[in-house]
Amino acid sequence: MSSHETSAPSEGVRSLSPEDAWERARTMVVGRIAFSSDERLELFPINYLVDRGTVLFRTAPGTKLAASLGRLQVVFEVDGYEPELNEAWSVVVHGALEPVLDTAEIVEAVSLPLFPWQSGEKAFFVRIVPSQITGRQFPVADPSHWVSQFTGVRRAQSE
Amino acid sequence: MSSHETSAPSEGVRSLSPEDAWERARTMVVGRIAFSSDERLELFPINYLVDRGTVLFRTAPGTKLAASLGRLQVVFEVDGYEPELNEAWSVVVHGALEPVLDTAEIVEAVSLPLFPWQSGEKAFFVRIVPSQITGRQFPVADPSHWVSQFTGVRRAQSE
Repeated sequence: MSSHETSAPSEGVRSLSPEDAWERARTMVVGRIAFSSDERLELFPINYLVDRGTVLFRTAPGTKLAASLGRLQVVFEVDGYEPELNEAWSVVVHGALEPVLDTAEIVEAVSLPLFPWQSGEKAFFVRIVPSQITGRQFPVADPSHWVSQFTGVRRAQSE
Repeated sequence: MSSHETSAPSEGVRSLSPEDAWERARTMVVGRIAFSSDERLELFPINYLVDRGTVLFRTAPGTKLAASLGRLQVVFEVDGYEPELNEAWSVVVHGALEPVLDTAEIVEAVSLPLFPWQSGEKAFFVRIVPSQITGRQFPVADPSHWVSQFTGVRRAQSE
């Protein structure tokens, strides 16, 4: 059972405990990572796995990400929708990148069900070592916005 | 018909033209926005709409976002999956925030099918005015990673 306190900062929004936040993060496989590189913000999806209290993912040598592994500060976010509650959640991890360099750890990482979402050579394993994890869960105003695609139909003016 | 060039930087990755990137962004309703505030990276999901060549969304007065509307540089990302192609795409917009202050524009914005994903008072309309839009489309290594939830089952070693 997860704890669903109602100590809400705004209507219906509940903070998740770190344990609940990790639990939700474990249910998904694609999240987004953002970081600042040369004064420019980068943001893209990654296929990830929660492993050893970190967010583990693969990247390719030669990328901006691989090049800047010197404890680069990043933020990671994953969200999901719970149809039975008509609620969505969002989990955010702040932390620093750390390459997986230990051979035994690499062997173990290779055996994990972690494929790069994008096919191609992504031989490098990287962890986001968290300094903070936060999560919130909230009712969704219009669930069709989450589950279906926007069709481009505009509503009539004021009803 | 969308143009699918194969001028790929890495295996199977195709860059999307700005037109194709906008077209894909129009098919979704939830994206993620990242920005730097007081030296800290923020990243969270937003319900958005492509309108007048900008990314339009709602926010609440009093939030970090509303407080820092002075042309704050942000990055926005949205991604999707095309089952018939077994391909995913990701579109990234770099730009600056701009509050919608003109009364006529607000009246029009209110009539758009743009609800805050999270219920609650989010009376403030904001645009991301793009300086750049990029997109890429790529084959998905394992489609189950996109369409289904990770079950936590680990695969056998070396297979």
